[in-house]
Amino acid sequence: MRVGVIGHKGYVGLPAILGTLLDIAPGLGLTLLFEQDLWEIAEEGEKLETPEQVDALFTLGGDGTLLRGARFLNGRTVPILGINLGRLGFLTACSGEEFEQGVRRFAAGDFVSEPRMALESCALNRDGIERCSWLSLNDVVLHKGGFARVVKFTVFVDDEAIGSYSADGLVVSTPTGSTGYSLSAGGPIVVPTVESIVLTPVSPHTLAMRPLVLPPQVEVKVRADDGPEELLVTIDGQVGTTFTGGETLVVRKARNAVQIVRFPGTTFFTRLRRKLGWGGLSERDGETI
Amino acid sequence: MRVGVIGHKGYVGLPAILGTLLDIAPGLGLTLLFEQDLWEIAEEGEKLETPEQVDALFTLGGDGTLLRGARFLNGRTVPILGINLGRLGFLTACSGEEFEQGVRRFAAGDFVSEPRMALESCALNRDGIERCSWLSLNDVVLHKGGFARVVKFTVFVDDEAIGSYSADGLVVSTPTGSTGYSLSAGGPIVVPTVESIVLTPVSPHTLAMRPLVLPPQVEVKVRADDGPEELLVTIDGQVGTTFTGGETLVVRKARNAVQIVRFPGTTFFTRLRRKLGWGGLSERDGETI
Amino acid sequence: MRVGVIGHKGYVGLPAILGTLLDIAPGLGLTLLFEQDLWEIAEEGEKLETPEQVDALFTLGGDGTLLRGARFLNGRTVPILGINLGRLGFLTACSGEEFEQGVRRFAAGDFVSEPRMALESCALNRDGIERCSWLSLNDVVLHKGGFARVVKFTVFVDDEAIGSYSADGLVVSTPTGSTGYSLSAGGPIVVPTVESIVLTPVSPHTLAMRPLVLPPQVEVKVRADDGPEELLVTIDGQVGTTFTGGETLVVRKARNAVQIVRFPGTTFFTRLRRKLGWGGLSERDGETI
Amino acid sequence: MRVGVIGHKGYVGLPAILGTLLDIAPGLGLTLLFEQDLWEIAEEGEKLETPEQVDALFTLGGDGTLLRGARFLNGRTVPILGINLGRLGFLTACSGEEFEQGVRRFAAGDFVSEPRMALESCALNRDGIERCSWLSLNDVVLHKGGFARVVKFTVFVDDEAIGSYSADGLVVSTPTGSTGYSLSAGGPIVVPTVESIVLTPVSPHTLAMRPLVLPPQVEVKVRADDGPEELLVTIDGQVGTTFTGGETLVVRKARNAVQIVRFPGTTFFTRLRRKLGWGGLSERDGETI
Repeated sequence: MRVGVIGHKGYVGLPAILGTLLDIAPGLGLTLLFEQDLWEIAEEGEKLETPEQVDALFTLGGDGTLLRGARFLNGRTVPILGINLGRLGFLTACSGEEFEQGVRRFAAGDFVSEPRMALESCALNRDGIERCSWLSLNDVVLHKGGFARVVKFTVFVDDEAIGSYSADGLVVSTPTGSTGYSLSAGGPIVVPTVESIVLTPVSPHTLAMRPLVLPPQVEVKVRADDGPEELLVTIDGQVGTTFTGGETLVVRKARNAVQIVRFPGTTFFTRLRRKLGWGGLSERDGETI
Repeated sequence: MRVGVIGHKGYVGLPAILGTLLDIAPGLGLTLLFEQDLWEIAEEGEKLETPEQVDALFTLGGDGTLLRGARFLNGRTVPILGINLGRLGFLTACSGEEFEQGVRRFAAGDFVSEPRMALESCALNRDGIERCSWLSLNDVVLHKGGFARVVKFTVFVDDEAIGSYSADGLVVSTPTGSTGYSLSAGGPIVVPTVESIVLTPVSPHTLAMRPLVLPPQVEVKVRADDGPEELLVTIDGQVGTTFTGGETLVVRKARNAVQIVRFPGTTFFTRLRRKLGWGGLSERDGETI
Repeated sequence: MRVGVIGHKGYVGLPAILGTLLDIAPGLGLTLLFEQDLWEIAEEGEKLETPEQVDALFTLGGDGTLLRGARFLNGRTVPILGINLGRLGFLTACSGEEFEQGVRRFAAGDFVSEPRMALESCALNRDGIERCSWLSLNDVVLHKGGFARVVKFTVFVDDEAIGSYSADGLVVSTPTGSTGYSLSAGGPIVVPTVESIVLTPVSPHTLAMRPLVLPPQVEVKVRADDGPEELLVTIDGQVGTTFTGGETLVVRKARNAVQIVRFPGTTFFTRLRRKLGWGGLSERDGETI
Repeated sequence: MRVGVIGHKGYVGLPAILGTLLDIAPGLGLTLLFEQDLWEIAEEGEKLETPEQVDALFTLGGDGTLLRGARFLNGRTVPILGINLGRLGFLTACSGEEFEQGVRRFAAGDFVSEPRMALESCALNRDGIERCSWLSLNDVVLHKGGFARVVKFTVFVDDEAIGSYSADGLVVSTPTGSTGYSLSAGGPIVVPTVESIVLTPVSPHTLAMRPLVLPPQVEVKVRADDGPEELLVTIDGQVGTTFTGGETLVVRKARNAVQIVRFPGTTFFTRLRRKLGWGGLSERDGETI
C-alpha cells in the first residue's frame, strides 16, 4: 500500500516519528511518500505530489494538519489516519504515543473508515465566471477584512433568497466543522452523521438571526452587496482569497466524502467533553445551600 | 373521504367556518366527523372519537391545534390540513379567508403531503416500568416545576452517558419543533427535511453547554437525579406529567411521520421571515455614516 | 461582639466546626447566637431569633447559606463572614480549613467589609395592595410554573412600559446575582461594584430580547398579563410565592447594602475563573495546525 | 454662539439642509463653521478646523456622523446636536424634517444636554511606547485581520491578568456603544447612565467566555500574544491602526464626557424598540392554541 505522509513541522517530536515510520513501513508493506517539507527531514522515500499517487494518507500534527490533508486529496476517497502530535483532536485517530500501534492496526486493516461530508465551493466574479474553487472538510467562511464594519450579504438556498443581512461574516459549515469556527460564532454542535450544511452568522447586526441547519443537497449562494469593503473567503481557516462586492460564493456538498480512520475507543461525545468541557456539572451547582 | 375536524373554540370565526364546511362537504364527497366540542357547535355530523375513523384531518385554529391533531392521530398516517384562524403559522396550510378554496383543492387532491418526523416518548419509573407514553410533533421537554432551582439530569444517547448537568430543563425537539421552544432556549433552526433530534438545554448552569443535533435513529434517555425536586414532562407544550428523581424519560423517532398538507406558495424560509423576522436587514445598518 | 451563626446541616463537617467555634469564641470576645437547627447541634449558646440581636453574622455552608443569612438580616448592616464548607464560593470569605484563622482575623478587625447592593421587592395584588415583600442579594425571578408555556408580562421602568413579551420568565438581578441564574439565562457578568439592576429574560419567544443593565435607582415593575397560568416569584432561588395574572411585582434597590467580609487574596476575577472556567484558553486553540 | 457643522455627503437632502441652516443662523445668533467637505457645498461661512473654535457642534447624518463629531471634539465639552438624515438613530436628537425646529430650540437653550461617558485608548509598542491614541464614544475593538483565525490575547484589568483567550476579537465598549458592535457580538444592552466599561469577546474559542461589565474607573489592557497574525484596532468602527503581537492596547474612561443634545420625547427604551425591535411580542405567541 502506498501511503502519503504530510505533517506540521512545528512539533518537536516529528523527526522521531518519521524515523520510526521509516523503520516499520517495509515490514508492514507500506511504501511512504512524503510531502516536500517532510521529505527534507526524512531524507529518503518518494515525494508526494498528487493525490493519485496514494492509497492512504497519514497526517502528523493536529486536526488542522488533517484538514490540510483532506484538501490535498481533493476528493480522492482514500482513508486518512490522523496522528495527533498535540492535544486530543476531534479528527485524529491516535496520539503520538500510540502512533506505532495505530500504524500497525491500520496496515492490518483493523480500523473503521468514517465517511465525513465535505464541501465544494467556488467564487464567481461579477460576470458569473468561476475564478477559484476549493474543497473543505470543516467550513467556508465569508468574512469582512480590514477596517470595514458593515458588510451586507444576501443568502440564497437553491436560488431562493432567504435573507439579506449585515454581519461580520457567515460560516458555511459541515457537521465536522460544527465544533470549529461555527461553534465560536454561536452555532449548534451537529453530530457528524447528521448530513447537513450549517449556516452560522458571525456577529450579525440584527438580533433575529439564528444558526440554520440545511439539508445536505442544497446549493448555498452568498452574494456580497456592492461596496468598497474588503472581504475574505477562508477555507478551513487555512487558505482563501479576497472577495469583492458583487461577487458570489457558491457552496454545495462535495461529491465524495472524506474517509477518516477511527479505532474503537473514544466516541464523539467523549471528545466533546474532553476538548470543550461540554456537558460537565458546573461549579454553580453547589450554590444554593 | 371521511374527514375528522378538530378546532379551537377560542376563535370568533369558528362557527361560520363550520357552517361553510358543512355546506360544501357533501358536494366534495367529504363526510365530516367532529370532536365533541365542535360537534356541539355544528349540531350535525358524526362524532370523532378514534383516529381509525378518518382518512384525513382538518384542524381549525393555529399551529397548536394542528399539534393537538397530530397527537390525536397517534401515528395514523393520514394528511392533516391546518386552517389558520389566527396569524400565519409554521404548520397550517391556509388562512381562514382561503379556507374554502383550500378545502376544495384538498378534496381534488391538489396538494402536497409533507412528511414530518415525530417523536415517541415514555416515562419509566424507578423500576424501569413504563407509566406514560406520548407522540409529539414538536418537542418533549423535561423542566423543573415549582420553586426548585437546581435540577440535575444525566443524558444518554444510545445508552452512552453524554453529559450530566444542572439546568432549568432540556428540550428534545424534532426539526419541526426547532422553531418553537427549542429556539427560545437558544437552539438552531433546523429545516424540516433534515431528520434529526435536537437537544437544547434550558438555562444550563455550566457555560459550556450548547445545543446538539443528533441523528434521528438514536434513542435519547434523560434520567433525573435523585432529589426532592418537582419536575414536569411537557409534550408539545400542551400535555404532560409530573416526574420525580430517579425516573427516566425515553425519546426516539416515531415509527410514522406526520403528514402535513401544503399548497404551493410560501416556503419554509418565507414563514421564517414573517413569523420570526429572521434574516432582515436591521436598523443598525444605517449607523456608521 | 455578639455573632449570629447560621448554617446548612447537610455538610458533614458542621458539628466539628461548631465545636471549634464554641472553643475559641470566648477568648476572642465573641458571644455566639445560633439559629434553631444549629442550636440543637451546638447544645449551648443563645438562640438567634432577630437581626437586632447581633453585631455580625457567620454563615456555615456555601453561597446559598450566605444568601439566606443576608435575607435574615433584612437590611441590618452588620458584616457577614461566609465560611465555605463546600467548593469555592463567590460570596464566602474562607474555606472550612481556613475557618479558625478566618474567625480570628475577623475578631481582630483584620478584614475588608465589601458592600453589596441588594434588592427589595414586593408583590401587589390586582388592587395594588402589597401582599408580600422580600430582600434579596442575588435576584428576584418571575417564572412560569406548572405546564403553562406561554406567559406574557409587561415590564415597566420608572412607570414607562419598556416591553411586553412572552417567555418562561424574567430575572431581576443585582450585580452579585449576575453570576447566578441570570448568567444561566444568558446575562452578562457584572462586577459587584457596578451598581445596577440587570434584567435577563428566560427563554423569550421573540429573538430580539437581550439582557438589559439598568441604573440602580430605577423602580422595575413586572405585570403578568391576565390568564389562567400559574406563575412563581422566587427570591434568591430559595423562597417565594405563587403569582397570578394581573398581579404586579415591584423591585428596587434595597435601602442598605449587605456587608460581605473579605480577606485579601482571591479577587473577583480569580473566583470567576475557578468557578466558571471563565477566560481560559480552550482546547480549540490547537486546531489550526 | 459659534457652531461647528459636520456632515455626511452621502445624503441627498444635505445641500437643502445646509441652505436652510445658513438662512436661519444669523437670526438665531449662530455663527457657522463648516468642515472642508461641507464648506465646499455651503460656499460661505468659516472653515472648521479645531475643536477650540466652537461652542457647539451640529452633525448632519446618522449616529456614525455624530460619533465622528465626538471624536473631532476630542474631549472639548460642548453640546452636540445630531440631525438625523437617515433612519432614527440612538444618538441623534431630531430628524431632518424636524431640523429647523430643532435648531431653533437649541439656540433658545430649550434642550437637555446628556453626558455620555467616552473612552480614551492608546496603542503601546513592544517597548511600552505610546504610538497612537484615540477618543471614542462607542467602542474600541481589537480584531483579527486577514486570513488568521487564531488570535490570542491576555486581558488585564488594573494590571490583574483576568483571562487569556483566543477569539476573533474583543470589544471594549461604553454604555453608548453597547447597542452597537458589542450587541452584535452578544453583549448586554447597558442604559447610558450606568457608567461602565463593557468587554465583549467576538467569537471566542472557549465556550465559557461571557460579556463582562466593569466599573468605569478601571484601566483595561489587552496584550496580543506574539505571533505573525495581522491585527486591527478599530475606533467606533471608523478609524484605527494595524497592531502586532506583543503590542498592548490600553483603554480607560475619557476625562470628559461627550454632551449629547436631547429634546424631550422619545426615551432610550423607545429608541431600543424602534431600532432593534426589542421587547415586542413575537409571532410565536399565537402558537399554542
